Amino acid sequence: MAILVVGSVAFDALETPSGRRDRCLGGAATYFSLAASYFTPVRVIGVVGEDFGPDEEAVFARRKIDTRGIEHVTGKSFFWKGSYMKNLNEAQTLQTDLNVFQSFSPKIPHEYEDSEYLFLANIDPVLQEDVRRKMPKAKLVCGDTMNYWIKDHAENLARVLKLLDVLLINDTEVKMLAKDNNLVVAAGKVLDMGPKALVVKHGEYGATAFFCDRSFPNDAVTVPFRAPAMPLAEVVDPTGAGDSFAGGFFGYVASQPALTPAVFRRAMFYGSVMGSFAVERFGTERLEQLAPNEIEERFALFRQLSHLE
Amino acid sequence: MAILVVGSVAFDALETPSGRRDRCLGGAATYFSLAASYFTPVRVIGVVGEDFGPDEEAVFARRKIDTRGIEHVTGKSFFWKGSYMKNLNEAQTLQTDLNVFQSFSPKIPHEYEDSEYLFLANIDPVLQEDVRRKMPKAKLVCGDTMNYWIKDHAENLARVLKLLDVLLINDTEVKMLAKDNNLVVAAGKVLDMGPKALVVKHGEYGATAFFCDRSFPNDAVTVPFRAPAMPLAEVVDPTGAGDSFAGGFFGYVASQPALTPAVFRRAMFYGSVMGSFAVERFGTERLEQLAPNEIEERFALFRQLSHLE
Repeated sequence: MAILVVGSVAFDALETPSGRRDRCLGGAATYFSLAASYFTPVRVIGVVGEDFGPDEEAVFARRKIDTRGIEHVTGKSFFWKGSYMKNLNEAQTLQTDLNVFQSFSPKIPHEYEDSEYLFLANIDPVLQEDVRRKMPKAKLVCGDTMNYWIKDHAENLARVLKLLDVLLINDTEVKMLAKDNNLVVAAGKVLDMGPKALVVKHGEYGATAFFCDRSFPNDAVTVPFRAPAMPLAEVVDPTGAGDSFAGGFFGYVASQPALTPAVFRRAMFYGSVMGSFAVERFGTERLEQLAPNEIEERFALFRQLSHLE
Repeated sequence: MAILVVGSVAFDALETPSGRRDRCLGGAATYFSLAASYFTPVRVIGVVGEDFGPDEEAVFARRKIDTRGIEHVTGKSFFWKGSYMKNLNEAQTLQTDLNVFQSFSPKIPHEYEDSEYLFLANIDPVLQEDVRRKMPKAKLVCGDTMNYWIKDHAENLARVLKLLDVLLINDTEVKMLAKDNNLVVAAGKVLDMGPKALVVKHGEYGATAFFCDRSFPNDAVTVPFRAPAMPLAEVVDPTGAGDSFAGGFFGYVASQPALTPAVFRRAMFYGSVMGSFAVERFGTERLEQLAPNEIEERFALFRQLSHLE
């Protein structure tokens, strides 16, 4: 079934120990869409400027991603410049130009209204809430957020958390949101804020899912689940790893007839798989052209990496 | 089969966010022995002072650990005072009194000479090498080390590494030893230094085993293996978690007829299991009295935590 994602479509300038790029296609919605597109049809809502041309359009088109919800307006696209020279696990922001993204007001094309799966990428929680309320048919809603919204927009974010089935954020964000330094305690506090499940991304150490007691995805699950990350000899560019994880995770969920505990677990692995591909090249390069057998082979490798038998 | 462990037997003073203790039985050989004793007979070589009395002796005796190799000398036992108030993942050393440990010269009782499994806990690599050479019948040798030996005793340590089957150290130590910040690259460099396998302990994120290409434990294994750690709502005292991991790991290996890849993987899980118990109480309190079914139940929980089916 189709996923609708709302979030940023951007250009990034990047420097990492492996090299530098002045202009890569980026943005959370872009990484998410590409990763999810290997599992299910994807529809995007975002906004771009005049610098978003046929080359960028083609990246989405080749993966059959529906871009009718990407609004084109006068001005420049969201631009972000980041460096990983000091720390591959944490980007240092050198420049952020919101440009056309500053006045982003998501509009839902009529053709998108029947989307049953909704991903609210990291944007203003006011916009996240607005989109969720305009999509009453969405039966499963996942979302992301970041330190900026947690710190300075807590009330708005609190309303969004009550509307989410699954929240996907990283260790630091969970602890900041819960105001607690123990991951398990913090996860419990975040689940009390609304989401039925919480997926905590640990970067090179994988990700852990925590479930609330209110029987989601079904009565059987209360134990957390940990998916490993792939030990990689070179991380070329960590940008978009988290959004690619979310795309693999939610894309796989949306491709299945029902969200069982087994599907949730496999989705965690597919999230890690897509994250591991994303960081192998600069920008979206690797995610743009994966062969289906590459995905299944890496999934098998993740199983070998973590399973006793 | 019996494991011989050589290392420190000590008293610790500890402060953690959960409380403080002025005097706990501690030391790497102590934690290792207790953890391993649930799987296989254990023999200890170490040195203690006059403060090591019947109460401490009884802790080993209750777990049927052979302490004939613990030398009693005039003076005080090794004493360490540490704090985890700032960071539960890294001890801050407040005081170290080597005392009788300063002139520790391991003597191998005649009755220990047939030990087929040898664990060289974190002590001076010169002593590690000496013990290994005096134990020609040991068919499997595991070892630990720390930043102090890596930085200032590199040549001595290099000789030990060539004598090890499995080296068990943490992320920081691997990267320091290899002089490389990427875990996979660093692991490869460490394996080039001698050990046939490398187990990297990641604290709350579990542990990863890397294998050299020289067919250990057999031709089938080259892919790394990652065991998760238990997400815990309270870490009362992290002291000894790594040594308890080593004890669970090596104890299980020594209890099995042969070291197959499947045994290695299960051993990693038992390592994580014993590490997870160790941190639940101060000092060795939790490891002193585990019921066998508690170990198997937690092993099952680790499987649920990490396995797709």
